[in-house]
Amino acid sequence: MSGQYQLAEATLRGSDYSIVVVVAVVALAALVVGYFLLREVLAAGQGTAKMQDIAKAVQEGAAAYLKRQRNTLLIFGIVVFLLLFALPAEGAGERIGRSLFFLVGAVFSFSIGYLGMWLSTQANLRVAAAANEEGGREKATRVAFRTGGVVGMATVGLGLFGASIVVLSFAGQAPKVLEGFGFGAALIAMFMRVGGGIFTKAADVGADLVGKVEQGIPEDDPRNAATIADNVGDNVGDCAGMAADLFESYAVTLVAALILGSAAFGAQGLLFPLIVPAIGVVTAVIGVFITKARPGENGLNAINRSFYISALISLVLCTVAAFAFLPTSFAGLDGAKTPSLPGNPGLIAAVAVIIGIALAGIILWLTGYYTGTEHKPVKHVGETSETGAATVILSGISVGFESAVYTAIVIGAAVYGAFLLSADTTVALFAISLAGTGLLTTVGVIVAMDTFGPVSDNAQGIAEMSGDVTTEGAQILTELDAVGNTTKAITKGIAIATAVLAATALFGSYSEAINDARKSLVAFTANLVSPNTLVGVIIGAAVVFMFSGLAVNAVSRAAGAVVYEVRRQFHDNPGIMDGTVRPEYGRVVDICTRDSLRELVTPGLLAVFAPIAVGFGLGVESLAGYLGGAIATGTLMAIFLANSGGAWDNAKKLVEDGNHGGKGSDAHAATVIGDTVGDPFKDTAGPAINPLIKVMNLVSLLVAPAVVTFTIQGDTALRVVISLVAVLIIAAAVVVSKRRGNAIADSPAEQVNNV
Amino acid sequence: MSGQYQLAEATLRGSDYSIVVVVAVVALAALVVGYFLLREVLAAGQGTAKMQDIAKAVQEGAAAYLKRQRNTLLIFGIVVFLLLFALPAEGAGERIGRSLFFLVGAVFSFSIGYLGMWLSTQANLRVAAAANEEGGREKATRVAFRTGGVVGMATVGLGLFGASIVVLSFAGQAPKVLEGFGFGAALIAMFMRVGGGIFTKAADVGADLVGKVEQGIPEDDPRNAATIADNVGDNVGDCAGMAADLFESYAVTLVAALILGSAAFGAQGLLFPLIVPAIGVVTAVIGVFITKARPGENGLNAINRSFYISALISLVLCTVAAFAFLPTSFAGLDGAKTPSLPGNPGLIAAVAVIIGIALAGIILWLTGYYTGTEHKPVKHVGETSETGAATVILSGISVGFESAVYTAIVIGAAVYGAFLLSADTTVALFAISLAGTGLLTTVGVIVAMDTFGPVSDNAQGIAEMSGDVTTEGAQILTELDAVGNTTKAITKGIAIATAVLAATALFGSYSEAINDARKSLVAFTANLVSPNTLVGVIIGAAVVFMFSGLAVNAVSRAAGAVVYEVRRQFHDNPGIMDGTVRPEYGRVVDICTRDSLRELVTPGLLAVFAPIAVGFGLGVESLAGYLGGAIATGTLMAIFLANSGGAWDNAKKLVEDGNHGGKGSDAHAATVIGDTVGDPFKDTAGPAINPLIKVMNLVSLLVAPAVVTFTIQGDTALRVVISLVAVLIIAAAVVVSKRRGNAIADSPAEQVNNV
Repeated sequence: MSGQYQLAEATLRGSDYSIVVVVAVVALAALVVGYFLLREVLAAGQGTAKMQDIAKAVQEGAAAYLKRQRNTLLIFGIVVFLLLFALPAEGAGERIGRSLFFLVGAVFSFSIGYLGMWLSTQANLRVAAAANEEGGREKATRVAFRTGGVVGMATVGLGLFGASIVVLSFAGQAPKVLEGFGFGAALIAMFMRVGGGIFTKAADVGADLVGKVEQGIPEDDPRNAATIADNVGDNVGDCAGMAADLFESYAVTLVAALILGSAAFGAQGLLFPLIVPAIGVVTAVIGVFITKARPGENGLNAINRSFYISALISLVLCTVAAFAFLPTSFAGLDGAKTPSLPGNPGLIAAVAVIIGIALAGIILWLTGYYTGTEHKPVKHVGETSETGAATVILSGISVGFESAVYTAIVIGAAVYGAFLLSADTTVALFAISLAGTGLLTTVGVIVAMDTFGPVSDNAQGIAEMSGDVTTEGAQILTELDAVGNTTKAITKGIAIATAVLAATALFGSYSEAINDARKSLVAFTANLVSPNTLVGVIIGAAVVFMFSGLAVNAVSRAAGAVVYEVRRQFHDNPGIMDGTVRPEYGRVVDICTRDSLRELVTPGLLAVFAPIAVGFGLGVESLAGYLGGAIATGTLMAIFLANSGGAWDNAKKLVEDGNHGGKGSDAHAATVIGDTVGDPFKDTAGPAINPLIKVMNLVSLLVAPAVVTFTIQGDTALRVVISLVAVLIIAAAVVVSKRRGNAIADSPAEQVNNV
Repeated sequence: MSGQYQLAEATLRGSDYSIVVVVAVVALAALVVGYFLLREVLAAGQGTAKMQDIAKAVQEGAAAYLKRQRNTLLIFGIVVFLLLFALPAEGAGERIGRSLFFLVGAVFSFSIGYLGMWLSTQANLRVAAAANEEGGREKATRVAFRTGGVVGMATVGLGLFGASIVVLSFAGQAPKVLEGFGFGAALIAMFMRVGGGIFTKAADVGADLVGKVEQGIPEDDPRNAATIADNVGDNVGDCAGMAADLFESYAVTLVAALILGSAAFGAQGLLFPLIVPAIGVVTAVIGVFITKARPGENGLNAINRSFYISALISLVLCTVAAFAFLPTSFAGLDGAKTPSLPGNPGLIAAVAVIIGIALAGIILWLTGYYTGTEHKPVKHVGETSETGAATVILSGISVGFESAVYTAIVIGAAVYGAFLLSADTTVALFAISLAGTGLLTTVGVIVAMDTFGPVSDNAQGIAEMSGDVTTEGAQILTELDAVGNTTKAITKGIAIATAVLAATALFGSYSEAINDARKSLVAFTANLVSPNTLVGVIIGAAVVFMFSGLAVNAVSRAAGAVVYEVRRQFHDNPGIMDGTVRPEYGRVVDICTRDSLRELVTPGLLAVFAPIAVGFGLGVESLAGYLGGAIATGTLMAIFLANSGGAWDNAKKLVEDGNHGGKGSDAHAATVIGDTVGDPFKDTAGPAINPLIKVMNLVSLLVAPAVVTFTIQGDTALRVVISLVAVLIIAAAVVVSKRRGNAIADSPAEQVNNV
């Protein structure tokens, strides 16, 4: 293998710039399309005054949460900004660019999250109102789809626009700057996923435990003080968190491709990774506009159809672009590093992109199969409800394990397939990252599909709380919600696939960063059969388990606080149960806000400081092992958590649709238990693993040169001190959150229990 | 680093042989001690005729199962024997020795399992009878402890004896022969763990679902047709499977140490790994004899005390032995390969063994903390029972995740600590394997502790079924059973630690096997940052998830068949419920036997053929990645499954002891659900991961040279065909077991449901 990890600085010429400008214009066009979709959504009817009241409370709660989260993240962002600034860099330009674009990535990520949240709080009311009108099914579906379209357009538009700007302004020293950009996006997305995930599930689980279980009142009953918080949660978790997460996937995947691009394919290598998602933007617009359920058709089929159609169009256009834009030999590339390399760049790029698009399609199919109500796995989970909750849990876990295995193997096959496209390591890694950009072409439609879920869920909540929606309208909203469960699981599968592809490709930069710092002729290898690398793999796998456990625990703790507050309100104010007194919704929103922001700190610190501890403490070989372990276990864990949760949720819906005894039966109670277990799995721990992997990857990439430099200089003491400080920070955070947990368990809830 | 992976053939001289003979005599002495303990156990009272009747049924069921399992394994064993014989080997001696000692390892493993099962079926009755006598607590505890002692002595005695024989007869060409021996032991242990685990939990879960849940009759009620099967299961799963598993741990750890020994430490390196466990045998005898609960003391404290005392004695004796037997410089070693190496062999060996013993102590403490009824985690799980089953499941999963993380990190730290003992790779790997032998010194006591659990559980069953045991006696047995839950979790932790240490050390042999086959001067490396290795890591992690899912599913399916049969008996024969007609216990035993033997095939084939598929299909780098992924994820998964299961079981016991509302409360129902979920976790999937890792490791070690040879010869087509055949075998097995599952779910159970 020649040219191992030879990344190099890119050079763009005049005509190249104009291509980037065209890409930026396409990105802006996506935003314009999004704007027109938005106008259509906002023009829809807003229902009764009562519905508007409720929607307003949800909007205010969500906005208040994100405002406070912004303040928390600001502190975090400044600290990381300073750390980043302090890290060794080659020259002031790189140092400033890296830190500055870290901020840009972070701000973009947060803004897209905010936009997603704002939009969905506007749309939920309108979907509920539409379901109430004549021809409600079509109208409600249309508004929900259109809302998804707005968020989808915004995500791909801003993602592509951001990447174009970075390339335009930093083409010369792009890699480090791009790393900063990706890191900012990933870090903020992780916090929004974790914080929003804790908020939404604390409110959801807390509301269910007191409402459904203790008081026997239905979900979304207005007498439950946690209902508004539950609806706020859908927006800050499933919408804001998801939008930021997918933006981050977009950003980091593009970063990986752009870093490798010029080394592998010269100037064209910097441009082609922008062209592919630009095509994706065009096909996403098509996908959003052609999504229309035929009469009597399941909504998921309609979504799937438009996904496959738009994916097929992307595939054709990308193949054409690859052959049109790229030469048939490496000698034909502008500024090719290895003009004598055998192989056809156009063919390599086309096949790589096709692999990525096919991967998206297979994940969509697999996830639909494992979490959809009409397929065997969910039906089987539903059947096991007849023998009680234990068998529901076991069958759901089996579904999760099984789907994780097949999805992981498919992702692995895609990586391996792209890897085989060239014997040159850099080109092979670039092919893997191009498969990632192929995956990105589907993100617009994916986001549109995903947003659909929480918007429908919220619309259902508003309908239930206001009591102003007809039975028929409520049924429509329930159906839309069930489709949402599957689309949400699909999004998580696609997101984790981007994490694996980007991480694999970024290993090239990792190796190069170490080679540069070592100034050695011997290329860096992390030999897996050596115990230090293997120990790294074990620790990496352990961190995924720890992060998942922390997230689940955080939900339990925060839900406990919600339970206490709702119980207190019922106890102090008997009028709430009679329906004569309005519960203090705002207090539960405040509790969720406070607790979720407090709880996101520990997993956040773990993600940032664990690679620092391993890198400085055990060296760069162990750190590579750590990343490998985290990627492998993280992939499986993320899909397991997402799909078992999705299967449980839909098994519950199956029973609620009248199977196995229907609502109120023992079988229903069993599936409610499954759903509650699945809540923090699928909406808190699972989706946060994607940005977690990327954050750890980028932190490792950023600190590796410092580790090497200290090692060469013999600063063992300094390395050990840095590692210990990192370990202590994590340990202190864990201890503090454990203490908090016990305090909640031991005091107020107990008191109210005993009242 | 010099001397990378230079394993060499050992040479023993006259005085060395006499040391091996002394070790063999110590091993035989352990068996003699075991014999005297056995006489004491058998001399104990056997209770009423009714109790003896029940015990007889259990004995017959267990013996019948193992007989049929033996026949199944015989087929498997012959096939693997032939495959092994067909693999490339250097000369006929290696080929014959390897295959022959595969059979020896397999026969030993099976025999120890059989012995463990036979003993416990003899002891359970006597423990139940003792609990009924005057001073029942002391007597019952003593009989249970002594039974454990017999199995402990048998395991270490036969393990050490087997290894001594191999060294005596094959010292010259030991490595490949040793691999065969370890492979035979691990393969049979895996099947016994999986088969027994499916049997025991199918019967347990099936009995609970119909008895406790549907009919509302207590556990072990004689009217339940599955009770005898449940008790048989405790013996074939928890006793036979566990004994074979720990024997296998013993064998493979010693194999790893002996393979590396002579290369690292010359002739002394072949002897010291035998001396350490010989010391362990002596201290195990001490440990078994000093175990005695003080009046009013928790049984676990007594066990822990004797563990720590015997571990301390081992530590002192091993340190003395290391300094007495090994020289202070490498030049002083007989036939040292690298006499100029800096460092003190005696010190290195002493510290390595101390690391191993300390690791056992820490795992004991950690597991006790996370699964014991008197510590916070289980108490917390118990508390969450007040908010229903969902919170019980979530808190138990959190406990499992958390304990897995800390245990994995401690194991990782032990590996890394031993690795740091020498800059020479071979010596560092030998130090890691010596840490494994340090861990082995505790196995005698560990097995004694573990056997205690199922024996007490069974005694409880006999007491309940016969109705001939006093309330006080029953209470004593319940307490003993709770202690057993924690000791069983500890055993699994120790076993998985041996898997990591042995696997890490065996990576040295793996590399050497490849270097030998390649005949290249460039040492083999599996570069983790290269995509093909990383894909291997992902697949390795996936196989662990798949294996766990298959095991859990197998239990669900087999339990479904049990549910159907028990329901049928209740339905066809109303006299059973009145207590006038005796249910047909034998039919349920037959069903469990048939189903568990059928169900073990798929996970068994996965374990053997997945490394073959990866190795031949993707190459030896991917296969190394595969093993790394399987080790890391397997460690975490095994501990997660074992400890969450243990915590749920003990949380249930906490509630049954009168906390949170006691028996019959909603909280109790919630913990019963947790316990049922935990059953296949802790007794089927979790414990089988340890032998799984070792089987996959040894298969990889055995096939790697063939992969390299085919690659060098350019036989790509042959490689691909072998890989595809392996994949097809796995796929076919998965499809067949899925079909079976659906057939059960769709037909008879449904029919009876609708009766």
